[in-house]
Amino acid sequence: MADETCTGREAEVWCSYQRLQRALGTALDRRLEHGAGISAADYALLVPLATAPGGVLRMRELGVTVEWDRSRLSHHVSRMVKRGLVVRENCTEDARGANVRLTEDGRAAIAAAEGHYREAVQRYFFDQASADELDLLGRVFRRMLAGLADADRR
Amino acid sequence: MADETCTGREAEVWCSYQRLQRALGTALDRRLEHGAGISAADYALLVPLATAPGGVLRMRELGVTVEWDRSRLSHHVSRMVKRGLVVRENCTEDARGANVRLTEDGRAAIAAAEGHYREAVQRYFFDQASADELDLLGRVFRRMLAGLADADRR
Repeated sequence: MADETCTGREAEVWCSYQRLQRALGTALDRRLEHGAGISAADYALLVPLATAPGGVLRMRELGVTVEWDRSRLSHHVSRMVKRGLVVRENCTEDARGANVRLTEDGRAAIAAAEGHYREAVQRYFFDQASADELDLLGRVFRRMLAGLADADRR
Repeated sequence: MADETCTGREAEVWCSYQRLQRALGTALDRRLEHGAGISAADYALLVPLATAPGGVLRMRELGVTVEWDRSRLSHHVSRMVKRGLVVRENCTEDARGANVRLTEDGRAAIAAAEGHYREAVQRYFFDQASADELDLLGRVFRRMLAGLADADRR
């Protein structure tokens, strides 16, 4: 909705939600870029790789974990390969499949990024709400997610 | 944070927030694609154009309104030009500036999309929370936005 339609109690909440999404994304991007030279999108892919055994995941598994579509994932992984954060490998168990492996540089980047990420989420998200408010946010978010999952099955 | 780190009360709320963001984005994209043949990103740019006098805005103004950076805006507008939703024009008042103008097809697309968008936001967002819960969400979101704006000024 355009700003003109952000009037009325409900619409204001929706507009705040959308603004928050953009502003938090920008803040996390900046913090990670400044602290570790990676974007929030890089971070989202590096975390599951860093916790996978041997730092390797199938492309398909990685896509399911981060809930990105194939095209977005493939483009982003290609950019990360160019920057030396990951390498693509053929999958030994499945000729059609491809693996993504974290490099030493990728592991160093995620190590440098983690503290910055946690600190930013703490400051911009958790510190702004009381424990009771966070509980309520969690309940409402989970209800919304359940509604979306229901719609998906229909 | 990876799924393994989504344990603990605070972390669960953050993970739900991130999942909700992805799931709502996907649901809105699907609904708009199915109902009007446009994406949520197209919709975000078409709304301010449709409400601007004559359906025209400077690129710069459009970027400020939707809070996108120049590169993302420029790429996306190029794709919308190819699909006939908007045209680029030289700005008569400023030789360096460019305008974006809504076409008849763009106006038809936004007209077709509006009802689908409102219905989806109603069902997936507003219908999932009570009036009191929505009020609290609005207050917390605005507090988080104020915290982010403070950080931006420093």
